[in-house]
Amino acid sequence: MTGEAAAFVPGHVTGFFSVHQAGTPAKTGSRGAGVTLTDGVTVRVAPADERTVTLNGTETAVPAVEHVLEALDVTASVAASTDLPVGAGFGVSGGMALGAALAANGAFGGDRSENELVRLAHEGEVTAGTGLGDVVAQARGGVPIRLDPGAPPHGQLDGVPATGRIEYVSLGELSTADVLAGSTARLSTAGVQALDALRERPTIEEFVRRSRRFAQRADLLTPEVEGIVTDVVEAGGEASMAMLGHTVFALGRGLSDAGYDATATRVHDAGASLTEE
Amino acid sequence: MTGEAAAFVPGHVTGFFSVHQAGTPAKTGSRGAGVTLTDGVTVRVAPADERTVTLNGTETAVPAVEHVLEALDVTASVAASTDLPVGAGFGVSGGMALGAALAANGAFGGDRSENELVRLAHEGEVTAGTGLGDVVAQARGGVPIRLDPGAPPHGQLDGVPATGRIEYVSLGELSTADVLAGSTARLSTAGVQALDALRERPTIEEFVRRSRRFAQRADLLTPEVEGIVTDVVEAGGEASMAMLGHTVFALGRGLSDAGYDATATRVHDAGASLTEE
Repeated sequence: MTGEAAAFVPGHVTGFFSVHQAGTPAKTGSRGAGVTLTDGVTVRVAPADERTVTLNGTETAVPAVEHVLEALDVTASVAASTDLPVGAGFGVSGGMALGAALAANGAFGGDRSENELVRLAHEGEVTAGTGLGDVVAQARGGVPIRLDPGAPPHGQLDGVPATGRIEYVSLGELSTADVLAGSTARLSTAGVQALDALRERPTIEEFVRRSRRFAQRADLLTPEVEGIVTDVVEAGGEASMAMLGHTVFALGRGLSDAGYDATATRVHDAGASLTEE
Repeated sequence: MTGEAAAFVPGHVTGFFSVHQAGTPAKTGSRGAGVTLTDGVTVRVAPADERTVTLNGTETAVPAVEHVLEALDVTASVAASTDLPVGAGFGVSGGMALGAALAANGAFGGDRSENELVRLAHEGEVTAGTGLGDVVAQARGGVPIRLDPGAPPHGQLDGVPATGRIEYVSLGELSTADVLAGSTARLSTAGVQALDALRERPTIEEFVRRSRRFAQRADLLTPEVEGIVTDVVEAGGEASMAMLGHTVFALGRGLSDAGYDATATRVHDAGASLTEE
């Protein structure tokens, strides 16, 4: 019952969020909304003599992945690959943690349920300070609305029924840990307002509009990101900033239509899962 | 904001279940587990002068679909197509109801969330007596475990992390409404036992073994179905009966290996969703 196993986890861009600390990592998290992407992270796990973690072939330290392997009590090599920009708000660390959990359980013939594996990955992200809501969103797929914070059975999700093309332009990294280490009161107030508004009208256009307003109110827009978002809106499109990265995402051909050389992907209709052998 | 829209809903075979009646259709449902299938139901909805519902081109009365259209207050043509056997335990009625909900919301530019649309379809199935748990499972995808009965936010789900080939042989219809109209006490006791056991060891092999034991204890096996299941097990495979239909499902090549001319499909990794225009 042991062998190699692989999992695919969609990328995830958060549009807006509020921070909710609680007594345990499983109950800690964020409320908010985002969009999962067909561009994602593939994670292969194989039993090995020592723990190694690579991302696109380069050895790297990912505390959330370490947390997962430790919790599952396995010694394995974890090899992640992705076309997504790293550290730019696409949930790559959450994807690595969740993919490692699913694939390690598969590789070692484990008997954890999907909710348990999601919880382990979420706890790893929260403990490491690298994310608060990506994992539960990536486990769900679609356009997840995080109604309540935390991992199963605490967190509760809904979704915006939507499909279609998403474009993005990434200008580089922004440290999630740095932003979360600062005061998040103003950010969280704006995040809760955006969530309430989206729940009144759960469409993907409303999601992006509320994300844009959130980014402005939370004062997270850098001048360069703000300039691109403005260009898309002036060209008749809908765009906002990925939380947290120097990244602009747009519906449909919003960035192309505004003259940018954007990467195209799509709303992903599935959550994370094991891939066929 | 109005036009045609389409949704895909995976098929769903329940392996075991218990019945839970409550004060409202949203809270009524089943606990249990099943497997969603890449063979599913595609539903197209378009505004029309009168309500029509077709399945594979033939006009048909599906009370759960009527319920959904009534709740959304739309007049539309609903055209469903599927390769799955109808009335044989694959969740075709649930798939039609859920697909109609998603596609009608899309076609009419509606603003219901996914949870709300799932709830409407579930209520339609429960009210019509045509299903208790297919809709919430089909909305999730994978190998859903129904921890608590009912639609969101009442029902709670988990999943068995699994992928791979599923085979089936269908011998014909079995009325869900007739079985549910009889005494379900014995069936429900066996269903709760199976659920507890699966939660102890959530693997797909355990799911099928517990399903088989459930079918025996609940006295639902017809002689012909029992014969096929026995043949698969004697050939080293895992198989059980679809709840509720004269259908045998098996992991991997279980039915082929036992000499049967089976249809092959796969575990579906996604829940129901709108399809690309």
